[in-house]
Amino acid sequence: MFRIVSIIICLIGLPVFLKGQVKEEVQIKMFFNKALTDRTAYENLRYLCKNTKGRIAGTPEAATAVEFTFQVMNRMNLDSVFLQPVQVPRWVRGEKEQAKILSDKFGNKEVPITALGISIGTGEPGLTAKVIEVHNFEQFAELGEEKIKGNIVFYNRHMDPTLINTFSAYGAATNQRTQGASKAAEYGAVGVVVRSLTTALDDHPHTGVMRYDNNFPKIPAVAISTNGADLLSLWLKEDPNLNFYFRTTCETFPDVTSYNVIGEIMGSKYPEEIITVGGHLDAWDNSEGAHDDGAGCVQAIEVLRLFKKMGIKPKRTIRAVMFMDEEIAQRGGKEYARQADLKNEKHYFALESDRGGLLLKGFGITAPEERLEKMLALKKYFEPYGIQEFTKGGGGVDIGPLGQFGTPLSSFVPDMQRYFDFHHSAFDTFEQVNIRELQMGSAAIASLIYLIDTFDL
Amino acid sequence: MFRIVSIIICLIGLPVFLKGQVKEEVQIKMFFNKALTDRTAYENLRYLCKNTKGRIAGTPEAATAVEFTFQVMNRMNLDSVFLQPVQVPRWVRGEKEQAKILSDKFGNKEVPITALGISIGTGEPGLTAKVIEVHNFEQFAELGEEKIKGNIVFYNRHMDPTLINTFSAYGAATNQRTQGASKAAEYGAVGVVVRSLTTALDDHPHTGVMRYDNNFPKIPAVAISTNGADLLSLWLKEDPNLNFYFRTTCETFPDVTSYNVIGEIMGSKYPEEIITVGGHLDAWDNSEGAHDDGAGCVQAIEVLRLFKKMGIKPKRTIRAVMFMDEEIAQRGGKEYARQADLKNEKHYFALESDRGGLLLKGFGITAPEERLEKMLALKKYFEPYGIQEFTKGGGGVDIGPLGQFGTPLSSFVPDMQRYFDFHHSAFDTFEQVNIRELQMGSAAIASLIYLIDTFDL
Repeated sequence: MFRIVSIIICLIGLPVFLKGQVKEEVQIKMFFNKALTDRTAYENLRYLCKNTKGRIAGTPEAATAVEFTFQVMNRMNLDSVFLQPVQVPRWVRGEKEQAKILSDKFGNKEVPITALGISIGTGEPGLTAKVIEVHNFEQFAELGEEKIKGNIVFYNRHMDPTLINTFSAYGAATNQRTQGASKAAEYGAVGVVVRSLTTALDDHPHTGVMRYDNNFPKIPAVAISTNGADLLSLWLKEDPNLNFYFRTTCETFPDVTSYNVIGEIMGSKYPEEIITVGGHLDAWDNSEGAHDDGAGCVQAIEVLRLFKKMGIKPKRTIRAVMFMDEEIAQRGGKEYARQADLKNEKHYFALESDRGGLLLKGFGITAPEERLEKMLALKKYFEPYGIQEFTKGGGGVDIGPLGQFGTPLSSFVPDMQRYFDFHHSAFDTFEQVNIRELQMGSAAIASLIYLIDTFDL
Repeated sequence: MFRIVSIIICLIGLPVFLKGQVKEEVQIKMFFNKALTDRTAYENLRYLCKNTKGRIAGTPEAATAVEFTFQVMNRMNLDSVFLQPVQVPRWVRGEKEQAKILSDKFGNKEVPITALGISIGTGEPGLTAKVIEVHNFEQFAELGEEKIKGNIVFYNRHMDPTLINTFSAYGAATNQRTQGASKAAEYGAVGVVVRSLTTALDDHPHTGVMRYDNNFPKIPAVAISTNGADLLSLWLKEDPNLNFYFRTTCETFPDVTSYNVIGEIMGSKYPEEIITVGGHLDAWDNSEGAHDDGAGCVQAIEVLRLFKKMGIKPKRTIRAVMFMDEEIAQRGGKEYARQADLKNEKHYFALESDRGGLLLKGFGITAPEERLEKMLALKKYFEPYGIQEFTKGGGGVDIGPLGQFGTPLSSFVPDMQRYFDFHHSAFDTFEQVNIRELQMGSAAIASLIYLIDTFDL
């Protein structure tokens, strides 16, 4: 009797249920329905933001985040949940930074600054010097050592607000932060102050990592809020001899052990083929790391939850990976690929969500031509959800090292107009994430992985 | 000499400047560049939010908003700025509303409520009664008068979170608020409490207008926050005999005079043909009215600013209209169309921005078939800005009455996932508006009007 009923359902019921839609369309609708009616991912994000704030690699907060995400996945009845050890740098910000513009003409004015990641500190008394404002490295040759030596270099190049792609605007302004200290030190500068990388005018400094070139002396580097930068620039025009004081006590210590956190659903047909979906668990210590990148982490976990909830048994193994240390030295992504290589793992596809839990516009994909075309053609399944931008070119800092194996790499590409308002600042809080935007992203990632796995793309 | 230089620029310079782009593409890029590098519209919005909060029609705050937008446009060197008198309703919320669940089992608990627009008050002592939870009007016939009479009806139908189009979800839930009081009064209810129309779980009640059917007694109507609604529903399951107390002192007074505020740039070729771009100046008294609809107002003004700034002389007259009283009785839109009829004005095109100053996804347009097709084909100019959804069907509450003249009507259609988090609540604040999203909208509206005017569509 049961068998007859089953056959009847198969022959009659299913087509009626599908109402002329192909099975995959129905399945995708279910991913969205399940995601939009569940608060698990959102509440996971709340926990990360409110209980592990400041979780830059190597901190106790990062350890809490590792333990929390491990436990969350451990309760999900997955096939495997494990920690992958990673040696990470240990940089400590120290005391709250202080900075003041000291002007005989305008008086003294405190301005908000933040030390850049891995910068050295100024030492106990702080640093006071005159200020040279520049907008690019080419100006150094023009100004010459005599104008720069002993002074603080103030990099004030704006992110170009006319670029619709704000990541391009970020990219075009970012070398001030990453290389600015050593470029200035080459000409004898004693410190650098960098305009925060945001198009917003605000009072939160936006931090981020920098690098020292070992050919030049290490000098302390800080970011100043955009409002602070505008004020400093304005005062400099009228009082070029003003002084700038800042004090930072940041320090780098020896590497410590941390972890990538990995949960997986074993593939039913090709268990040895791995699909990775991930975000990074570390976040700048001045922020809750909601958009960058708590959102990507909880979305990756949510993908596994959705597969389990809907009883879908993927052909391939799906792994949610919380990568550690994206922000400072990208050790988690490198270690993940190194272990993959050591274990001769086959990485079928990888996707990273690290552009905020914002409204999804589409996916960027890097893959061999034939696979790429098939993947880009999946766009049609996403159009009913307003997700229309499937473009060539994808990846991510953490999944990037998997590229060496020829693995197709995909980026989650949401709307980016607001992203740099939050990025690397105290404004990157849980309250800035909308549950629907977050969950439409989760559903879309699950759908993309489901389609790639189902169609063997 | 000057003429020769001009000719050389015309013959050589211009094509070089355009770099193979058609003039319209360059002009649109300039609209975006100018909008994204200017803060005028954003600062106008800040003023409206912070200095005219509570500007529901007929209030002193609405008068301040009229005066402010009039002065702003008056300083812009437009061809004409004027006030169009409108008689508007005058509804006054009165004292802060109070509400409590009174349960013998769980104790007493205050919950956040807000009176619905034009509702009567409960009177001084407030109203206490048992509660019947319903989800639709069909349940009344089932329950019958004996279950409802003397009780408070609690409408707890959720906005459907699985609908990607949140306006559809709003539309499907909204009759509880607009008609719920009279439907319940028909069965003898003494008051109604309506679940706030939002997909968010929050503690701000979301207000909105309701209507009384004169065939039934008028009973007081309030919205309860979604968290409050969930609590009430939960307690009712365990304690169906609990009481609900609420107190509102709202009252309706005779109509007063207010104004639509209108600024215009006279057309250079067809001055008698009018293109209207507008938003509504009134906003619910419990909010700053940032997204609803301060944003639409400042965008309309910004369109005129952009045309002036770029020295574009449109062929047709372009009017920015701040409509008064969209929220309660839609008198501004009706009066604008009535005056147009009396003066035999020719309305060539009208666009309304009243869905928030959020990331623009596209435009909806209603127009005769041939004109519609040409307008929808303008999409190609907007794709570089991520604006891809040009769809049939547009309009707006305020411009709707122009439809009687056959005027093509267009809606500004931004991303709508977050909109109902803010809508008609205390959360609709200036801080929820992003300057880039706001200004990409302004630039796109200006571009659409420019193209329609230039190509005589």
